[in-house]
Amino acid sequence: MKYLAHIDIMPLKELLDPQGKAVTSGLKNLGLQDISNVRIGKHISLEVNANDKDSAQNQVETACKKLLANQVIESYEYSLNEVE
Amino acid sequence: MKYLAHIDIMPLKELLDPQGKAVTSGLKNLGLQDISNVRIGKHISLEVNANDKDSAQNQVETACKKLLANQVIESYEYSLNEVE
Repeated sequence: MKYLAHIDIMPLKELLDPQGKAVTSGLKNLGLQDISNVRIGKHISLEVNANDKDSAQNQVETACKKLLANQVIESYEYSLNEVE
Repeated sequence: MKYLAHIDIMPLKELLDPQGKAVTSGLKNLGLQDISNVRIGKHISLEVNANDKDSAQNQVETACKKLLANQVIESYEYSLNEVE
């Protein structure tokens, strides 16, 4: 079966996010004064072929831990849904 | 009131995503053969101070259109929830 995973990888809350800070001031310059606390991370979508949801979940976990997220500075969360 | 927006900005489906292709082969090299069709975009979280949800939504739309997403090559979607 085919599963679709949506993964969000964000800088840890404890860390500064310089890119987010820059975007916050960019938005202020555009007149959007009421937007604050911008944080920027990655969104990754991928498809997994697996026999069941547990196996798909294992693969997504492995992908996040080994390649996609740097757990020293980033946290990840994901949703997994069957397609087709 | 304060609203929290989660925005996903992804490369349009019609376009190649070279970063996604590179990650797909990286994952294959790690033994994750069953993962395919990786696409990589941005995930942005931000807070909006607004009187009501409509006004918050307007500000998020403006931010996406004017700064966050390049609509020639990217699409965006978001969710908006009240906090506090």
